[in-house]
Amino acid sequence: MRRASAAELRRFASSVSQSHGVPPDEADLLADTLVVAELWGHASHGMLRLPWYVDRIVSGATEPACHESIPLDHGAVVVLDGNNGLGQVVSQRAVGVAIERAREHGISAVGVRNSGHFGTAAYFTRQIAEAGCVSILATNASPAMAPWGGREKRIGTNPWSIAAPAGDAGVTVLDIANTAVARGKIYLADEKNLPIPEGWAADADGAPTTDAKAAIDGLILPMAGHKGYIISFMMDVLAGVLTGSAFGRDVVGPYHQSGRSGVGHLFITIDVASMLDADDFAARMARLIDEVKSTPLAAGVEEIFYPGEIEDRNAARIERQGIAVADDTWTSLEELAVRTGVPLPAELPIELTAEAAGTIADSRESA
Amino acid sequence: MRRASAAELRRFASSVSQSHGVPPDEADLLADTLVVAELWGHASHGMLRLPWYVDRIVSGATEPACHESIPLDHGAVVVLDGNNGLGQVVSQRAVGVAIERAREHGISAVGVRNSGHFGTAAYFTRQIAEAGCVSILATNASPAMAPWGGREKRIGTNPWSIAAPAGDAGVTVLDIANTAVARGKIYLADEKNLPIPEGWAADADGAPTTDAKAAIDGLILPMAGHKGYIISFMMDVLAGVLTGSAFGRDVVGPYHQSGRSGVGHLFITIDVASMLDADDFAARMARLIDEVKSTPLAAGVEEIFYPGEIEDRNAARIERQGIAVADDTWTSLEELAVRTGVPLPAELPIELTAEAAGTIADSRESA
Repeated sequence: MRRASAAELRRFASSVSQSHGVPPDEADLLADTLVVAELWGHASHGMLRLPWYVDRIVSGATEPACHESIPLDHGAVVVLDGNNGLGQVVSQRAVGVAIERAREHGISAVGVRNSGHFGTAAYFTRQIAEAGCVSILATNASPAMAPWGGREKRIGTNPWSIAAPAGDAGVTVLDIANTAVARGKIYLADEKNLPIPEGWAADADGAPTTDAKAAIDGLILPMAGHKGYIISFMMDVLAGVLTGSAFGRDVVGPYHQSGRSGVGHLFITIDVASMLDADDFAARMARLIDEVKSTPLAAGVEEIFYPGEIEDRNAARIERQGIAVADDTWTSLEELAVRTGVPLPAELPIELTAEAAGTIADSRESA
Repeated sequence: MRRASAAELRRFASSVSQSHGVPPDEADLLADTLVVAELWGHASHGMLRLPWYVDRIVSGATEPACHESIPLDHGAVVVLDGNNGLGQVVSQRAVGVAIERAREHGISAVGVRNSGHFGTAAYFTRQIAEAGCVSILATNASPAMAPWGGREKRIGTNPWSIAAPAGDAGVTVLDIANTAVARGKIYLADEKNLPIPEGWAADADGAPTTDAKAAIDGLILPMAGHKGYIISFMMDVLAGVLTGSAFGRDVVGPYHQSGRSGVGHLFITIDVASMLDADDFAARMARLIDEVKSTPLAAGVEEIFYPGEIEDRNAARIERQGIAVADDTWTSLEELAVRTGVPLPAELPIELTAEAAGTIADSRESA
């Protein structure tokens, strides 16, 4: 394990991207999305993904510079074509349009087509919430689950996010994928020779299993059984079918080096002020948060969190202490450094304080 | 068990409601929502609820006639105040506004305050989908779950629904509550002295349990663990906090005979034609449905369904064969008949054909 500052990781990720033709401001944005995921405690969406995004630029699957277009503009409803730019950059452009149009009409829908994997959905919905709007964002993703009752991957994890301003608390934000568990947790159980809980996975025949090895050869199950399947299906309707982007089996994921992604997103944005006085809304949010946080605790629990609070807490601490980078990820960054001539991030001392070990577990399961 | 035609149950439910002062068209609507839930195979939202709604009218908690008002109208964003009318009637009025404004602006938001329990969300979202729009609907509900890590009910099941037109398939529709399981399933396990699966419930101390008795004294857990809690929280932000209705602990459920409900809903409606040619959209939906339904089957599975297909299938069969009414429910209808002088629904012969026994299981978990 290595440790580096957020600034150094940002500098590295941006420079590496620029060396592959990504314009400076777009490279800075991509780097920020990765580092912010690390700060939230979601290393699964952090630096480890930099080589994947770069590889897709090298292969020509992703355009290094984003040249989006707006093929359809009905005021409150807009379609933005990402023309195969980086999903993060395309989505950032969509955020600007979404907020502008919601302020004008009270609500807006921005359908995004021909985008790519955008990292975490919360990166975008949080910005919209910070601008005083309620944000709903759905994306589709490459096939990762079987439809309920099937035994072949045909439906994506299709993450979605809802965020809202929350006065003194900043924002509240949900950001989830519809799978029961991140694939990495099954690999971990297998390494430790432990069974996995019911409901996580099925074997290659589609039968539920608690055997980690059988699960690795099989399928991740949707969260909440058939409900997760239904949610993922409908998120693809919103993000893929409705926006005119790819959907279902035609979506190509970030793990593949080549092939246009075709990922679609749908941003729904409601200007809070169009429905309620903003101060009144903030006071109401404060009361809901207080009700939740003051709930008598279950045995062994120290604190109840509102949605997004764990990430805010992690970010404040990790920003101070530096970001821990797993060895495998560091190795992949070294390879990028060699390939591009960009100096590796400066390392911080490794020793972890008790506080640094206290990152609240990665509760985000998206792939 | 008794059996009666849909028409007889509609007649009975409407007449009983009218005898309590509900205007004829509103009484017909309430009756239809109950009977349609029965037809979908969701008896949990059917005739058994008629006495509950009536009791709340008798107590004065619900106004027998709906006199909604529109305190705020920004075109694409509207707030509709139900003024404590029946949730079903209030929501039906909101459907009309939602579609009208979506056709005008491409997208609309209708925030509904001071409504009541509206039955199934799909009753409303399906209508919006049939009108060529994509519908997203969130509602809040009375406290039924503890926040993740807590041991006191402070957050509702907060059902939500997404529906979309689907060409020859009619509509696709998701309609779920955020609880792991319907409470009735735990009572059933207790009666049979069976353990309940992990993830369904916690005991009175908030500790996870597989003991049905401990679960009855304890708490239903959210679906998908902490994710279900976060989803329910954010649905209350949309349906309660944003609309200016009650939220959190202030919402009164249909099981309580008295007390203003304060339930809020949020309808988000997107006119498909504002984003994509309607025929193109239908063709894309057909392809997504075909991809899902043609997936190789898991062992022991006979068919894969798209969201809403089971309900359509049940409705066609149950409409032909009549609706089975559980003995307890029938008894409560008999009491209503005595109280109001409305003749009981005519009974159909009870014997069940093999086909009639084949109602596909109630997959809807909302309370």
